[in-house]
Amino acid sequence: MTSREKLISRLQARKHVCVGLDTDLNKIPQHLKSAEDPIFEFNKAIINSTAEQAGAFKINLAFYEKEGATGFDSLQKTLSILPDDVLIIGDAKRGDIGNTSLMYAQSIFDHFKFDAVTLHPYMGYDSLQPFFDYSDKIHFILALTSNSGSKDFEKLMLENGDYVYQQVISKANMWNQNKNLGIVFGATNPVELDQEIRNFSNLFVLLPGIGAQGGSLDDVVTSFKKFNNFNFIVNVSRAVIYADDTERFAEAAAEKMSEYNTIVTNILQH
Amino acid sequence: MTSREKLISRLQARKHVCVGLDTDLNKIPQHLKSAEDPIFEFNKAIINSTAEQAGAFKINLAFYEKEGATGFDSLQKTLSILPDDVLIIGDAKRGDIGNTSLMYAQSIFDHFKFDAVTLHPYMGYDSLQPFFDYSDKIHFILALTSNSGSKDFEKLMLENGDYVYQQVISKANMWNQNKNLGIVFGATNPVELDQEIRNFSNLFVLLPGIGAQGGSLDDVVTSFKKFNNFNFIVNVSRAVIYADDTERFAEAAAEKMSEYNTIVTNILQH
Repeated sequence: MTSREKLISRLQARKHVCVGLDTDLNKIPQHLKSAEDPIFEFNKAIINSTAEQAGAFKINLAFYEKEGATGFDSLQKTLSILPDDVLIIGDAKRGDIGNTSLMYAQSIFDHFKFDAVTLHPYMGYDSLQPFFDYSDKIHFILALTSNSGSKDFEKLMLENGDYVYQQVISKANMWNQNKNLGIVFGATNPVELDQEIRNFSNLFVLLPGIGAQGGSLDDVVTSFKKFNNFNFIVNVSRAVIYADDTERFAEAAAEKMSEYNTIVTNILQH
Repeated sequence: MTSREKLISRLQARKHVCVGLDTDLNKIPQHLKSAEDPIFEFNKAIINSTAEQAGAFKINLAFYEKEGATGFDSLQKTLSILPDDVLIIGDAKRGDIGNTSLMYAQSIFDHFKFDAVTLHPYMGYDSLQPFFDYSDKIHFILALTSNSGSKDFEKLMLENGDYVYQQVISKANMWNQNKNLGIVFGATNPVELDQEIRNFSNLFVLLPGIGAQGGSLDDVVTSFKKFNNFNFIVNVSRAVIYADDTERFAEAAAEKMSEYNTIVTNILQH
């Protein structure tokens, strides 16, 4: 099953919500903290309870790098138990000169065996192409992000009347020879989302920013439905994995996913 | 000794060349490959032979991440033997939403204990500020990079007549409250360097792109001298650490550094 097939099969089953495994030792339930590898134990429980309902899983590498080699061990163990039929996104936000980006790509795809990655566009094509060369993987390029700093550079206006992030979308379309590119578009930008949707009909779209960051799942799904575009995946991290801080945290996460999937299905069915 | 003091004391001694420990298992001398940790053994020899002459050391994390937890072990061992009186730059090119950037900053500064970092500006201020809050560290923001893809976004012209990278420099100046910011400026852009130098007199400048990438050490040093700016550090990786692939590789690296330092001193003295 290619990465593309994994994602498309979930999207066809109306599973558009991605579980973000941003696992923070300070936020996991107390009773897990005495385990040998608390982060792995937490992830295992969340994965088991949500894998059926998830559109994808997203793992932000920062949460693991923080602990150095130990963190990378927890990450490898977590990756080893993730099911084979669901897209696993390495939210790494990498981008470097060509020969170095190749090493990052090898880290993400050959070593950790992620299905997809997130990338910083700033350094341009040759900083991204070593990733793109993994043609059976999916590559999400940051376009308009969910944070307030998006105004500093992403929303600068170019002399041609485009914003910088619109130029990123335009280049991503141009570079999408293998039909395996995507963009990251913050769910906290509903107006821009509505305006842009028709410009990325051939790109997968990963939307962070729901829940803790203030974006609305309803708004996002409604926008995409309006344009008959179903290539989107909405990431939720904290609102799912920390839905409850007692021994029933995994059950609560599954309930939250079920709530979200009901919202999505209700909108898409009408 | 703060990170700033480490850097300034080397610059005052006219040590402007930074050794890039981009150590690739495929490129190190054959006789080291049977060692238990060949990358660490290689680094140790290079560090011992070049530490006196180096303006700084720069370690690109990609080269270590590629091997996952094992690579991070080599990295930690390498960091543990680097001398205390020389700036160690973590060339990580990170940048994420605030709470996640904080984790990357903790990884770079608290876990690995680097003195400095390189950062992707794309996501704006709040993606960088968790790094800036480490006020005794140095933060190099990518401005104009050394690769061909710099034309894709960095060199797009804004409606105000600035290029995107000029806006990054302008914001870096604005954010430089703690006098601990720097920029990355590719040595492959000598014309732009000459034009811009007066705009970053209060920022440290890290210049990659010498040697394998085609930039000229002579040109860079001459440009900075012309403007009486000595806050620059020129990175050389491959041309130093792979100067020789026999058992005398470390000696050859030291000789190369000595050559470079002579070039720098000759220009700065006249």
